[in-house]
Amino acid sequence: MNFCSLCGEKVTLKVPEGDNRERYVCLSCQEIHYQNPNIVAGVLPTWQDSILLCKRAIEPKYGLWTLPAGFMENGESIEEAARREALEEASIEVEDVQLYLLVSLPHINQVYMMFRGEMSSEYAKPGLETLETQLYKKNQIPWENLAFDVIKITLNYFFEDKSNEMFKFRNLVYYRDRIIKQC
Amino acid sequence: MNFCSLCGEKVTLKVPEGDNRERYVCLSCQEIHYQNPNIVAGVLPTWQDSILLCKRAIEPKYGLWTLPAGFMENGESIEEAARREALEEASIEVEDVQLYLLVSLPHINQVYMMFRGEMSSEYAKPGLETLETQLYKKNQIPWENLAFDVIKITLNYFFEDKSNEMFKFRNLVYYRDRIIKQC
Repeated sequence: MNFCSLCGEKVTLKVPEGDNRERYVCLSCQEIHYQNPNIVAGVLPTWQDSILLCKRAIEPKYGLWTLPAGFMENGESIEEAARREALEEASIEVEDVQLYLLVSLPHINQVYMMFRGEMSSEYAKPGLETLETQLYKKNQIPWENLAFDVIKITLNYFFEDKSNEMFKFRNLVYYRDRIIKQC
Repeated sequence: MNFCSLCGEKVTLKVPEGDNRERYVCLSCQEIHYQNPNIVAGVLPTWQDSILLCKRAIEPKYGLWTLPAGFMENGESIEEAARREALEEASIEVEDVQLYLLVSLPHINQVYMMFRGEMSSEYAKPGLETLETQLYKKNQIPWENLAFDVIKITLNYFFEDKSNEMFKFRNLVYYRDRIIKQC
């Protein structure tokens, strides 16, 4: 950030009065420009014994496999965001949607909120950001070609819970390359 | 938003290529300025049969009672944000912290993430944004002087769950003046 988005003057990095963190502050119009974490909402879509994955048609991680997920938009709930991503990326609708996993990623200022839900039908079709959609059974998951660690973590917990026949909501912290807290 | 925070030129509201929403776009440097919901993290701090509330020393809702909560910052996890707010606003530490309630507020582009936890000691002291801290038993809660609906909702669920002796994680949508979805 170099310029004030309100008045166009140069911003200065400083600790505002009564605050304890550096912010971009406009000394001209006094606006403080806060920068905060973003929410990524997504779904683990199931169809019978399979899970739907999407092959990414965009960077980062072009060509690798992921679960439908993306940045939550203003004006929607977390679940609406997750459902929208499933529709946009794979043309699917999901039912019995349950919040399944929260993952804080403090090193990249993101919080993932992953739901799970059963697809309304087997039908799926790649959206603009997807090259291909594919239903995978557990032994077919392309573990070496998953786009993000959070996706791998979500799938791992899903299969663990499925084998125990009990799905458990979890709140994790993933820092750089490992889970540092789980509760 | 009027100006590009990167290059200082005027921004234009338009739907970028491959997108389906209007964004502030800089036609000079091509930067797309996304605006996304913020996370508010907080704690419902208990001490034996009481709950700690804070009287707000800042607007909005100056002088009304709230639970320690505030915007999650970059570089922290949800739980760290909640603990930091408890420390900043009431000088308290909480133990056995459990994520308790998620509330999407689509009309104001926020998601509340409320934890519950037992205070490490009875000691509390108002921080800069707090006029006063007070432990309240159930029949003493100042229901008519609570700062935000989300705080009232959190307290209501807490007492309901406490009377049932089972605390249940919930994911809600609160739109304008009522809960429109609960799961």
